[in-house]
Amino acid sequence: MTMTSAPTSHAVPVAPSTGALRPLGLDEVRITGGLWAERQRVNGTATLDHIEHWLEREGWLANYDLAVAGSLPDGRRGREFSDSEVYKYLEALSWEIGRLQSVSDAAASVDRLEARLRAIVTRVAAAQEPDGYLNTRFGRPGQEPRWTDLEWGHELYCLGHLFQAAVARVRTRPDADDGLVEVARRAADLVCEVFGEGGDERICGHAEVEVGLAELGRALGEPRYLEQARIFVERHGRGTLADIEWGRSYYQDDAAVRDADALRGHSVRANYLAAGATDVAVESGDRELFDALDRQWDRTLERRTYVTGGQGSHHQDEAFGEDWELPSDRAYSETCAGVASVMFSWRLLLASGEARHADLIERTLFNVIETSPDASGTAFYYANTLHQRVPGAPADPDAVSPRAHSSLRAPWFDVSCCPPNTARTFASLAAYLATADASGVQLHQYAPSIVRTVLADGRAVAFEVETSYPRSGSIVVRMLADSAEPWRLSLRVPAWAGGATLALRPTGGGEAQRWPAEPGIVSVERAFAAGDEVVLELPTTPRFVAPDARVDAVRGCLVVERGPEVFALESVDLAATPLAASDFADLRVDPRVAPVDAVVGVGTGDDARVLVRLVDARTDAAADVPLVPYHAWAERGPSTMRVWIPAL
Amino acid sequence: MTMTSAPTSHAVPVAPSTGALRPLGLDEVRITGGLWAERQRVNGTATLDHIEHWLEREGWLANYDLAVAGSLPDGRRGREFSDSEVYKYLEALSWEIGRLQSVSDAAASVDRLEARLRAIVTRVAAAQEPDGYLNTRFGRPGQEPRWTDLEWGHELYCLGHLFQAAVARVRTRPDADDGLVEVARRAADLVCEVFGEGGDERICGHAEVEVGLAELGRALGEPRYLEQARIFVERHGRGTLADIEWGRSYYQDDAAVRDADALRGHSVRANYLAAGATDVAVESGDRELFDALDRQWDRTLERRTYVTGGQGSHHQDEAFGEDWELPSDRAYSETCAGVASVMFSWRLLLASGEARHADLIERTLFNVIETSPDASGTAFYYANTLHQRVPGAPADPDAVSPRAHSSLRAPWFDVSCCPPNTARTFASLAAYLATADASGVQLHQYAPSIVRTVLADGRAVAFEVETSYPRSGSIVVRMLADSAEPWRLSLRVPAWAGGATLALRPTGGGEAQRWPAEPGIVSVERAFAAGDEVVLELPTTPRFVAPDARVDAVRGCLVVERGPEVFALESVDLAATPLAASDFADLRVDPRVAPVDAVVGVGTGDDARVLVRLVDARTDAAADVPLVPYHAWAERGPSTMRVWIPAL
Repeated sequence: MTMTSAPTSHAVPVAPSTGALRPLGLDEVRITGGLWAERQRVNGTATLDHIEHWLEREGWLANYDLAVAGSLPDGRRGREFSDSEVYKYLEALSWEIGRLQSVSDAAASVDRLEARLRAIVTRVAAAQEPDGYLNTRFGRPGQEPRWTDLEWGHELYCLGHLFQAAVARVRTRPDADDGLVEVARRAADLVCEVFGEGGDERICGHAEVEVGLAELGRALGEPRYLEQARIFVERHGRGTLADIEWGRSYYQDDAAVRDADALRGHSVRANYLAAGATDVAVESGDRELFDALDRQWDRTLERRTYVTGGQGSHHQDEAFGEDWELPSDRAYSETCAGVASVMFSWRLLLASGEARHADLIERTLFNVIETSPDASGTAFYYANTLHQRVPGAPADPDAVSPRAHSSLRAPWFDVSCCPPNTARTFASLAAYLATADASGVQLHQYAPSIVRTVLADGRAVAFEVETSYPRSGSIVVRMLADSAEPWRLSLRVPAWAGGATLALRPTGGGEAQRWPAEPGIVSVERAFAAGDEVVLELPTTPRFVAPDARVDAVRGCLVVERGPEVFALESVDLAATPLAASDFADLRVDPRVAPVDAVVGVGTGDDARVLVRLVDARTDAAADVPLVPYHAWAERGPSTMRVWIPAL
Repeated sequence: MTMTSAPTSHAVPVAPSTGALRPLGLDEVRITGGLWAERQRVNGTATLDHIEHWLEREGWLANYDLAVAGSLPDGRRGREFSDSEVYKYLEALSWEIGRLQSVSDAAASVDRLEARLRAIVTRVAAAQEPDGYLNTRFGRPGQEPRWTDLEWGHELYCLGHLFQAAVARVRTRPDADDGLVEVARRAADLVCEVFGEGGDERICGHAEVEVGLAELGRALGEPRYLEQARIFVERHGRGTLADIEWGRSYYQDDAAVRDADALRGHSVRANYLAAGATDVAVESGDRELFDALDRQWDRTLERRTYVTGGQGSHHQDEAFGEDWELPSDRAYSETCAGVASVMFSWRLLLASGEARHADLIERTLFNVIETSPDASGTAFYYANTLHQRVPGAPADPDAVSPRAHSSLRAPWFDVSCCPPNTARTFASLAAYLATADASGVQLHQYAPSIVRTVLADGRAVAFEVETSYPRSGSIVVRMLADSAEPWRLSLRVPAWAGGATLALRPTGGGEAQRWPAEPGIVSVERAFAAGDEVVLELPTTPRFVAPDARVDAVRGCLVVERGPEVFALESVDLAATPLAASDFADLRVDPRVAPVDAVVGVGTGDDARVLVRLVDARTDAAADVPLVPYHAWAERGPSTMRVWIPAL
């Protein structure tokens, strides 16, 4: 197998050739403790197995075997896009292998995952046709011909995920000889041939191939793929896809990317496209396109994003609503839209270096992506409601559930993109924590972690981060080595963290210095000595947050936040209070009583709650009731729930 | 053709064999002026033609010809339920013929409509199969077999509408020899044979056959049809239909009718079923079933009904939401759910005589059903949003529109039930105005009209109603004949009409009497003389109405009502004010400034507006702005709109 050398050897999902910041990869950053380490542990030990079990059980993997046996379309199972879940799973496996490579004593796990990945790649590769075409649903006798249903067929979408899997593989195991990268390359070559300039002028009804091609081009040093990504991005808005009941905005074929005001239509499609378009803008130096995307991001955040970071206000078309249309009870806030939003924001952050993008990434990680899986990592929310009016029935652990029953986490769905999509995100999460530039290193997300990298000019940087964030706002960065030359450590101060401070505590008891730290980016430049500590103190007193007055759905309500976490009121927490018999719809929060930290019960950090004073508007009964972090709701059986609570 | 004599010869859509009130028919009540007379004129002269034009243009009528020619399924057009639009149209024609029979100088119109009705009946009848089966979508070679898709096939639903058309025909032209009644009878016989006790135990995925069979049984004196209606009603909730993504509640197969708490699932299906179940309860003396339906009606009104009377909170499944889930901006409030709700409420009213049912009928007529068609009667809302955030593009007058684009009225839809459903309602509207019982006559809805009937004991009653309602609340009932015996005239005082008064003004200048009239029913009993006037004065000062505190979507908002009409703020009315440049989302209504009547411009009653004080929360600019009756919104081009206005 031949392979073009990649322009970066680091294990990162996104590697722009230019931009304000260079992302640090899994080989440079490792999460060592806290919420995210626990999630990575569960993801690696439970979720991945769970996904493969269901991919087999539902026949989505066997579809490839049927293709090889020549028996398709008979026996094919799953929706038209089921191949894509296999590719997302391969991507998740690849990142997990990459992650474990930097963990001592994980060699056995790596070997086990390698074997599984290779077994699946072998089945997939066998189904690829001689010209590179790969899809179990189209193109064989008795199936619809290739590319005849771009609106709904998802052929290019599936390939986009194949490309992302190959990118993960080549960046974590560049010497692998399993064939995945070659499969992707042959498929990408075919896409360029069929859909290149002068060829088929249409786009895919579900964006994804754009971002997949762009990153594959970067990873393999293949400008044709980047060019094809550009072509697809530019073709959006030409109306080459059929008009449908929800309008062409559903698949972003209503307006050119550079002409749009905000993200619109299907919220996963919109974010995948925006991520790919950002790659294209960066690689082609298209400032106009980049600025358009950045403006769309701003407007979408201001007017079309839930307090959780969730996006998508419609069940019907899984789509953004109009500006300010953000119902809590019908919030769709699809898990995969959260994943896609992080992809978009991360690309803008790398290009611009601006903290607002990392702020949204943090909000979305804690309150959308982490909300989807339960503690065991084997049941998921597809949609993430912000208001559960009626306790949902528990999902059947042995059955496929409808995708958008927001009342419950379920093991698997007829459309089951969220399990592998969260899995690939968690496995690669360390790659979203830190970046480097000519001046030094930037920390964007806070977790117990170790960072070791070498700056472009050869200066070595090594530090560890010690924190119980988000339970406390103290973040201690401790240097692990002496630096001969000064370098700059930059830290993000989230927008919610008014009153933060930054301190430098030199090793050996030298005099500490302390500065106020305004929201945005703060930094310390120094020839650090091993043991030097930089301490960021973020105030994490629980707080009420009022909505924008233009959001009709939550007028007169308050939400409680602490640090990056949004809290929720769950009816199970009323049982032991004087409000046990109250109608959930009658409860009001008393805004004059500040929310306070509380530890309820014994146990882990997940039991750290926030108390608020609630009043029954009908009976005047009152009680201090503990709220739960939104991402941990519905872990204690069926319950009603609300994030925004009407104020007295 | 043989025909069993009907138990009633009056031209009414619903003729229970027992109940508190006997409905007066089109042969007894005639609307002579005002809003409803104008709507009936437009309906008869424009809407009916419009419907037939589109039924032909879209091939939904030609499907019957293709069936006769034996060429189906080739060339069949329209959705699986397109036959039902033909039957609703036949029903509308039948009522219109019945209505015009009591209008002088309408003979030519009657002849014209008769000829059209007969021409269509001939085409339909020719397609009926020898055993009575009738459906253009199922059962022929190359089509799916009969009754193989009860979930979605709508075969029984279509027949239910056929039965309602036949009922309209037999009650308005009992001597007609066109064959429509015979076609219905043969189809109903087949339904009883296939789905009777011991037969196929399933139900139709879209309720309607229940109410159609019940009324056909009444109209033809055929107890088998009533029994079959009972069988279908009782079978709901047994799970004989497949489970689907939205659950079996979608088609009310999740719980027995008598066990449910509220209407749920698809809102048209729910109301059609409730109407049929009420018929069954009344005819079988099933008090338990009746009480369950009455309770469901109460709870649905309290918790699942918009201020307009609209029902249905979800676009996705056209369904009711949970209690208190009533978003304005995603209100579905399907026009046909309004029609179906009136059918349900009317049956409860006839059985119980309680004013609350007539209150909801009035609210729904003015604010849902009248909202659907535009002034010309040739464009319709399928869904009726209560909050339009972005001005919609005008519908293409020469194209079929998607059904639920709530931003615009359109001439026709891919699912086009609202044009014929409103048409059959308006044509028969006089039959919903008044009833009789042993004591006298009850007026439920107010419009300029003439009522002539004979009570069960032979006392003749004749009066005219003079009013400019809803522009004013003065309703004058003037006797047209001397009554030898006393009888009681009862009048509904709507729930909103606190402070109403009732007066008796004897003819010839005798001393007038005047009483306070509490909401509910008020009455005067007297041996009336010709010229005697009973005058009901309903206060129609515009009023602010606050929402139930449990409705999240409109917390902190007010709505303006005057009489039975709900008012709306339309952006076109801001153009000439200091708020012309305001963002619609920033506007607040000043609750300290009472809304006042205002005549804006010159012209008809439709120009009577209500002024409210609006303030821009961002700039503090203020203006008195005229609101428009909600049913008349979007008549002046694309606009943003809201019914519930945030209060300062």
